[in-house]
Amino acid sequence: MSAGDELRFLLIQAFSTPEGTGTGLRSSTGPKSAMLMNYELVAPLLRDVDWDVHPGPAATHGPSLVETREEFFAAAAARLPIVREACESGRYNGIVLLGGGDPGFLPAREIGRRFGIAVNACANAQMHIAAMLGTKFSVIDVSEPHSVYYRALIHEYGFTSKCASIRNLDCPLPRGGASSGVSYRDEKARVEAGQSSVLVDAAVEQAVAAIEDDGAEVFVFGCSALYWLAPILEQRLLALGWQVPVLEGYRSAIELTRLMVRLGVSASGLAFPGAPAPRARRVKRL
Amino acid sequence: MSAGDELRFLLIQAFSTPEGTGTGLRSSTGPKSAMLMNYELVAPLLRDVDWDVHPGPAATHGPSLVETREEFFAAAAARLPIVREACESGRYNGIVLLGGGDPGFLPAREIGRRFGIAVNACANAQMHIAAMLGTKFSVIDVSEPHSVYYRALIHEYGFTSKCASIRNLDCPLPRGGASSGVSYRDEKARVEAGQSSVLVDAAVEQAVAAIEDDGAEVFVFGCSALYWLAPILEQRLLALGWQVPVLEGYRSAIELTRLMVRLGVSASGLAFPGAPAPRARRVKRL
Amino acid sequence: MSAGDELRFLLIQAFSTPEGTGTGLRSSTGPKSAMLMNYELVAPLLRDVDWDVHPGPAATHGPSLVETREEFFAAAAARLPIVREACESGRYNGIVLLGGGDPGFLPAREIGRRFGIAVNACANAQMHIAAMLGTKFSVIDVSEPHSVYYRALIHEYGFTSKCASIRNLDCPLPRGGASSGVSYRDEKARVEAGQSSVLVDAAVEQAVAAIEDDGAEVFVFGCSALYWLAPILEQRLLALGWQVPVLEGYRSAIELTRLMVRLGVSASGLAFPGAPAPRARRVKRL
Amino acid sequence: MSAGDELRFLLIQAFSTPEGTGTGLRSSTGPKSAMLMNYELVAPLLRDVDWDVHPGPAATHGPSLVETREEFFAAAAARLPIVREACESGRYNGIVLLGGGDPGFLPAREIGRRFGIAVNACANAQMHIAAMLGTKFSVIDVSEPHSVYYRALIHEYGFTSKCASIRNLDCPLPRGGASSGVSYRDEKARVEAGQSSVLVDAAVEQAVAAIEDDGAEVFVFGCSALYWLAPILEQRLLALGWQVPVLEGYRSAIELTRLMVRLGVSASGLAFPGAPAPRARRVKRL
Amino acid sequence: MSAGDELRFLLIQAFSTPEGTGTGLRSSTGPKSAMLMNYELVAPLLRDVDWDVHPGPAATHGPSLVETREEFFAAAAARLPIVREACESGRYNGIVLLGGGDPGFLPAREIGRRFGIAVNACANAQMHIAAMLGTKFSVIDVSEPHSVYYRALIHEYGFTSKCASIRNLDCPLPRGGASSGVSYRDEKARVEAGQSSVLVDAAVEQAVAAIEDDGAEVFVFGCSALYWLAPILEQRLLALGWQVPVLEGYRSAIELTRLMVRLGVSASGLAFPGAPAPRARRVKRL
Amino acid sequence: MSAGDELRFLLIQAFSTPEGTGTGLRSSTGPKSAMLMNYELVAPLLRDVDWDVHPGPAATHGPSLVETREEFFAAAAARLPIVREACESGRYNGIVLLGGGDPGFLPAREIGRRFGIAVNACANAQMHIAAMLGTKFSVIDVSEPHSVYYRALIHEYGFTSKCASIRNLDCPLPRGGASSGVSYRDEKARVEAGQSSVLVDAAVEQAVAAIEDDGAEVFVFGCSALYWLAPILEQRLLALGWQVPVLEGYRSAIELTRLMVRLGVSASGLAFPGAPAPRARRVKRL
Repeated sequence: MSAGDELRFLLIQAFSTPEGTGTGLRSSTGPKSAMLMNYELVAPLLRDVDWDVHPGPAATHGPSLVETREEFFAAAAARLPIVREACESGRYNGIVLLGGGDPGFLPAREIGRRFGIAVNACANAQMHIAAMLGTKFSVIDVSEPHSVYYRALIHEYGFTSKCASIRNLDCPLPRGGASSGVSYRDEKARVEAGQSSVLVDAAVEQAVAAIEDDGAEVFVFGCSALYWLAPILEQRLLALGWQVPVLEGYRSAIELTRLMVRLGVSASGLAFPGAPAPRARRVKRL
Repeated sequence: MSAGDELRFLLIQAFSTPEGTGTGLRSSTGPKSAMLMNYELVAPLLRDVDWDVHPGPAATHGPSLVETREEFFAAAAARLPIVREACESGRYNGIVLLGGGDPGFLPAREIGRRFGIAVNACANAQMHIAAMLGTKFSVIDVSEPHSVYYRALIHEYGFTSKCASIRNLDCPLPRGGASSGVSYRDEKARVEAGQSSVLVDAAVEQAVAAIEDDGAEVFVFGCSALYWLAPILEQRLLALGWQVPVLEGYRSAIELTRLMVRLGVSASGLAFPGAPAPRARRVKRL
Repeated sequence: MSAGDELRFLLIQAFSTPEGTGTGLRSSTGPKSAMLMNYELVAPLLRDVDWDVHPGPAATHGPSLVETREEFFAAAAARLPIVREACESGRYNGIVLLGGGDPGFLPAREIGRRFGIAVNACANAQMHIAAMLGTKFSVIDVSEPHSVYYRALIHEYGFTSKCASIRNLDCPLPRGGASSGVSYRDEKARVEAGQSSVLVDAAVEQAVAAIEDDGAEVFVFGCSALYWLAPILEQRLLALGWQVPVLEGYRSAIELTRLMVRLGVSASGLAFPGAPAPRARRVKRL
Repeated sequence: MSAGDELRFLLIQAFSTPEGTGTGLRSSTGPKSAMLMNYELVAPLLRDVDWDVHPGPAATHGPSLVETREEFFAAAAARLPIVREACESGRYNGIVLLGGGDPGFLPAREIGRRFGIAVNACANAQMHIAAMLGTKFSVIDVSEPHSVYYRALIHEYGFTSKCASIRNLDCPLPRGGASSGVSYRDEKARVEAGQSSVLVDAAVEQAVAAIEDDGAEVFVFGCSALYWLAPILEQRLLALGWQVPVLEGYRSAIELTRLMVRLGVSASGLAFPGAPAPRARRVKRL
Repeated sequence: MSAGDELRFLLIQAFSTPEGTGTGLRSSTGPKSAMLMNYELVAPLLRDVDWDVHPGPAATHGPSLVETREEFFAAAAARLPIVREACESGRYNGIVLLGGGDPGFLPAREIGRRFGIAVNACANAQMHIAAMLGTKFSVIDVSEPHSVYYRALIHEYGFTSKCASIRNLDCPLPRGGASSGVSYRDEKARVEAGQSSVLVDAAVEQAVAAIEDDGAEVFVFGCSALYWLAPILEQRLLALGWQVPVLEGYRSAIELTRLMVRLGVSASGLAFPGAPAPRARRVKRL
Repeated sequence: MSAGDELRFLLIQAFSTPEGTGTGLRSSTGPKSAMLMNYELVAPLLRDVDWDVHPGPAATHGPSLVETREEFFAAAAARLPIVREACESGRYNGIVLLGGGDPGFLPAREIGRRFGIAVNACANAQMHIAAMLGTKFSVIDVSEPHSVYYRALIHEYGFTSKCASIRNLDCPLPRGGASSGVSYRDEKARVEAGQSSVLVDAAVEQAVAAIEDDGAEVFVFGCSALYWLAPILEQRLLALGWQVPVLEGYRSAIELTRLMVRLGVSASGLAFPGAPAPRARRVKRL
């Protein structure tokens, strides 16, 4: 594109759940602003964008978060046809995959490249921007299996040497009778009401440990259910004397998509080839 | 298990194709020996195993090889329910995922671990065994997109520093009107008839380049359609003075499954946790 | 800032030379559009930016390119007071350091952070964006000492594992009686006139070697005197079947500055602390 | 070999000591079952193997463990002639080097390869299998100098990035008047009698620290005097909610030897060349 | 040179301060012995050297230590003309850059190489020697910004994998109204008087933590104001049972310069090329 | 020691051979100058040293070079008692292990440390000094098995990232009826007589390839039979425009020993502990 073209983005959720289940922080129906978590944080960045939001495929893993490899693969496979259809529609020049663990991101980018469409996802975008700002970043995450999966993402995306640690708040949604007792919606409401929050306190405690023990200099979040914490955590750390940027995924992925559309790039055809490829390399070294 | 228990394996193909399509090297129906490629190489290793073979899910990507990320994700998602069902059946203590690019391996291992069942796949098994035998291995592969995907597997499995190179023979199956002109079945038949083969010659040429230029000391194959080349390539290299082991995936994955079953191990619960996890770690460093 | 704020950028050249010396591709006086190389490529990205350009400090190294460590340090030291003054003026929320080898970038970013001002430079920005698009990038560069310096930058910025190679066209400006015989201005004029160019041919030849031998999947340029080649090289490679993005520094640095200003980030205070620091860490691991 | 061949293994101890010295966990004379530690754990794996055991060369370092580099080199040099003689005898197709720190393993494998005989050792085998099961393993070890030597082995074998830590129980055998006060035989007897054991408690404590602080997901043992702890430690960790495999060296090395014999591989001739080599490479990159 | 030639060294301070400011440990005027800190430690090594000392450029950053990147760049730029002049004078065959953070070292070595003169600096020399003596070294340093800069030096010099940690005593000189309350001169005087010292105690505490938690096996110092601690810290650690070498920068840099002069080497012309270079390489891999 | 103490070195050959066998470049009897190869290069550095030379243990591997792992282990084990005896004698403060592949170096350094005696070896010393002079070094070596062993040394010493390549001239001494046809003594004599030499030409050819293809910026030699080439190769490369230092092992090891004795260091007691160790660390990370 040329930089003067309008920005036409489709934002795609990782999955949709029946009302009253999930984190309670977003809706899978209704006006598009309700379908984004923390709309107030994101809205200023979308002001000059022509955007739609897709609720994502219906969840097959129940009312909990996507946490295991099996669940992430199922979510990825269900989201890819939506990506393909969006690319084929010709209506978008940028696609933003919402959600914390990027289900389907790399094949989605592969699809997008064939159409010249920039595709970004929240974990990947946060990591790229975090790597610009400090030597190492740490991830604040929600549960044991989620952070094991996220660790694999960090390796897969090539940020092994840039990640100081993953810090696990251990607050998964209820599953199979087990519950951490944390309600994201209630915690957010408490914070908005100026009250204390065990979730915020845990995030601050883990972030300070990440700074002092692990070498963290920037923070990102592993699960989108925590993204609303970003400005709060940044303020709390600043009050302690730690001047560290705290990113979240929606804003990171949207702005990276903007950058790529404005520069006219989606991905390298050698990193994301179609089949058959127009030309083959004889040797690839690692 | 204790080492005296019998070995009960299910071998699962990556996908099934209608007769007359695909590589022509295996059938998706018929006696189980016909459903394995190169049965003569594999049979001695299965002699004391009680084994079944599953033809894999019906291919959704057409008659070609699985090559792009989009195709690998679709194959993975379709194979995982077969793995889950096999585990739940209680009939097996080992599962071998057949095919070159391991679609669905890591989530399949995650599923297997919850049942105490060893799950292995051909690329992963070849790499582990290759790493025991020499400093670096090279991969002989079939096409540009397949080897780009395989390169990602090597990184994902943690063998970056063990892989010298991927050497691409550039002989994909026909797709979208494009064809490399190589028939795997014909080439194999020529070799069995004692005739020369352009495929064998290309493999030897690339392997020698991998030894002399890239530092290869062991060879593995990227695509299962090339596995029959293993003993032939090893002999040809030996005749040139190069004493290098050449592995292939079926035998490697079967013997690694045997080892794991005999030792009573499937995987670490910390590397492949279920949800909810019985216990959580506060911090993970990379 | 909030995303609705206007963008106020100062672009600072690495050094100014008397008219008639240097590459001849930019002026150190005159209208601001003449002070940018390749204004036609950059102008669309600056359309909504309130921008100034500073000609940079007077060159102390003579009419050639900045090439040795001694020269880069001198250029850096001379540019830093301009950065500090711009930050103190309160007139800008983004600073773009022009030129290929980023003289003074890291201390300039340190200065900027204390003021909450985003500072970017061309090499650094190109590398960050290249790392988003493919597995490895290669650098097309101008001379032996320049590319030795650039190699150190790659290590310093943490892109060692992302860089496939630096390919040296060996076309420095005349120095001490030695000359490569290449005039950047003449070559650019030839291309604009639809004529063949030895410089373009050399760039294509080295880029193809970088793809086939080194594993390059994206290209950046080491010296700003080559930035005009970006769209030309991309087209030439595409015509050969290689679908690879080719970046250049001005556009990359401008858009990264935009992204940082819109997200309200400059850098981590732990990576770029002031003195005295508000808070100290007891231990830093590498 | 073909997979139907019988398995003919020679197990070689690292050194023999006069009765009444050493750990007291094995004999250097008597029936072959008495010469293996923890015979009850190993016997099921040897049921279908035709095996002998060699007591190893007489210890030259006194009644303590092999701990320093000087002692490891002496033990290695003394064991290699036994390996060579066993290979030349034609009686074995697999050799298993017993003991924790693998004295002489790499030259022994070099010797074995010339005869097509698989040679394995306990530390190396544990590491290869541990690397299959989890992201990182930790080592439970006996003393300061032993674990410094073991650390060098980990680097030498190429498992640097796979090892989370070495945890030292600091319980060496008496030496030069110094004693840790721990008797391996007494501790094992206490455990078998259902009593508590300071050694087991220390191993559990260090293993939990390795999981929580170092990132361990699998355990191996540094010294063969600790191998009997494997099933006990695994159970104790499981009771705490940590589902982690705990390996030991005898079983690991025996099964890896089985795998290699069945696959017909010993090692690459390029990694373990004879002299003169049948063919030479001009260049080796690291 | 031939080994029998005399050694003619110029030692150059990083900066000079008015009497009564700075650390108080050295003078910027007076006899040359007063211009070196801890002359009694260094004098034995200079006995057979014909040496001069240059007080360094006048400090522009005020009476504090050089701590920020901006200050290090300013100090570097000011010192390089002194290096150039010394090389051009023909009076020296070795140059030793004094001070902790090596301002200007790499361009100074570049200048020296063109004249065949060995140039060394304190941080670089300490790291090279530390890497000979143990697996990993730790750095004892003075302040948050100083140790952030020093961390970058460690990466730049290629010692990332050799450095266990930087331990920060947090005792900067007064700056902008802030003060750590530590006087280096007073602490040194207390130690010489046989009294206790909070600085020594803090160094011992951090060094023990570096040994036990970080894996330090050798120590170096980040700031030259701490060099007098070297023999004291070594003794204190030895009394605790830790047999670890503790280096400091003056002695390390002087002896490395001696070694280089005696061997007739300064640096590789490919790592530190002049401009124009006598010969160019087409490709550089990282 | 204090720097004024005299230097008392013992130089120990790797092995002694009957007159008329081996390379013919040194004697195992006679005056000490005859027992050193290339005495004229080394003598200036030993002028102020009180030195002895030990002929090394009698070779057990026949008249060829030490090349295989088995041979290197035998040579190491035979040399260590000489080292121990030298340390116990109290006559030396430095020990220099002569020969190319450093048989027994690390245990010898361990022994030396307990006595406070600096022990160095030719390969290790060359690598440390090469790492000071350029980004990467290449090794010029003699044969396939020797360079495979040398590659392991490079990894073991921690120089993996500093070594560009090993270039093999493929000129082993005769062994088992095979011969490369190169006589080191004859080649050296030809050079001294001003004649051309196939060995020198091969070294130049490989060195140029190492510079242009592998990234070499400094050279070292793998086998001591090639050390006499150092000044000749350096001159030949300089004549081609390549300004690269070429080191050899005797001079490097002698000067590194001098440096260590003058600084009063031998090795860290944590890297080379005795048994029992005075103090133990609980955890070691890699």
